[in-house]
Amino acid sequence: MVTPTYPAEILQAVLFDVFGTVVDWRSSVSRQVAEAVARHGLTVDAEAFADQWRALYQPAMSRVRCGDTPFVLLDELHRHNLDEVLEVFSLHCFSDTEKTELNRAWHRLDPWPDAVAGLERLKQRYIIGSLSNGNIALITNMAKYARLPWDVILGAEIARAYKPQPEAYLNSAAALSLDPGQCLLVAAHNSDLQAAAECGLHTAFVARPFEHGPDQEIDLMAQANYDFVAPDFIDLADQLDC
Amino acid sequence: MVTPTYPAEILQAVLFDVFGTVVDWRSSVSRQVAEAVARHGLTVDAEAFADQWRALYQPAMSRVRCGDTPFVLLDELHRHNLDEVLEVFSLHCFSDTEKTELNRAWHRLDPWPDAVAGLERLKQRYIIGSLSNGNIALITNMAKYARLPWDVILGAEIARAYKPQPEAYLNSAAALSLDPGQCLLVAAHNSDLQAAAECGLHTAFVARPFEHGPDQEIDLMAQANYDFVAPDFIDLADQLDC
Repeated sequence: MVTPTYPAEILQAVLFDVFGTVVDWRSSVSRQVAEAVARHGLTVDAEAFADQWRALYQPAMSRVRCGDTPFVLLDELHRHNLDEVLEVFSLHCFSDTEKTELNRAWHRLDPWPDAVAGLERLKQRYIIGSLSNGNIALITNMAKYARLPWDVILGAEIARAYKPQPEAYLNSAAALSLDPGQCLLVAAHNSDLQAAAECGLHTAFVARPFEHGPDQEIDLMAQANYDFVAPDFIDLADQLDC
Repeated sequence: MVTPTYPAEILQAVLFDVFGTVVDWRSSVSRQVAEAVARHGLTVDAEAFADQWRALYQPAMSRVRCGDTPFVLLDELHRHNLDEVLEVFSLHCFSDTEKTELNRAWHRLDPWPDAVAGLERLKQRYIIGSLSNGNIALITNMAKYARLPWDVILGAEIARAYKPQPEAYLNSAAALSLDPGQCLLVAAHNSDLQAAAECGLHTAFVARPFEHGPDQEIDLMAQANYDFVAPDFIDLADQLDC
């Protein structure tokens, strides 16, 4: 049976959203926040802190996307937002050096249990790359920490655009000299996949129902007709015959 | 014994020139040229062809560096230069599709025998990255073909500058959020290393005495006082305690 338009036959690259899709940012950041605060003999609701730190990410990027702020790296957005969250939690214990170090918590995020094994399998057949709003240094350091075997780091800094701007997807495919239709975006977020699909990329939804903790209400299931829906990267590798 | 300025102690990233240093472009390209010509029932001095194709690379880049030509990807330079070499060798047998395919010979270059094993060892301790004038697609495809385990692909397309322009080195270090002094450039070419050293990078010379064939006369030995001189990547890994 010839199925020439089936994605697995024409795909060259499998690209991944990273925060929430590949790595568990909430547990990893909250653990490091709790440790940093504890070193000063204090306590904090570390998961609420991580949630608020992450929640400032979209409005900060929106200001960049609409042109109010020049393009900045995610490390710098995180660092700026850290000051705001520390103020909200009335934590004034950290020196500038300690804040720089705490900001690097985003470079040390644990992968979901299936992530590395799934990536290793997909890598045997396809180019695997990150397509994240994270900057190159952040994604590189995270890959060293979490042993993510990327072939190539793409995304915001390469594309000079933040997802879900179309240029973020289109310029990432172009950097590989590929058409959008030769690329598959894997993400745990419906909005990301829908933006990628509008650019002509193929799409795979992998639910991460605990990304936002035990009470998560969003992105629990696929909300559009994606090419693939999988419970984890191992199952996705099975579906892609890897 | 404390030696705080010894490169191995402060290094974070080991970056590599690729063509000639990591891969044997001459043997690989000439083999593919000979095969392509043979498919048309013809013969050619394939090594001379490869040499001339490569020889057009520096003048083409010089026109970009001095601003006469806008920034273009190495794939496009190679493709343009291919037309010129085919003309020199009076080879008019190839269709456009075949020329596009032949141009991809540069994506399928064999590594020197020590390269992959040396990179794997260096990767255990350091970020390893390409710092090449090759574009992202070319270096990514070459890494898949040759199993080069890069953590990150840097170089001309990231830096928007061609070596030996200082920005090619400085912007590559900056993309990792590293100071130049936290980076080591490994190359088989004295001119590349000297330009990197002027930007503050550490340097390692690895001789590749057959890059240009059995009669090579240049770059047979280190011509400056580099931080490291090694006969291959395995020895370099030894020197860096990897």
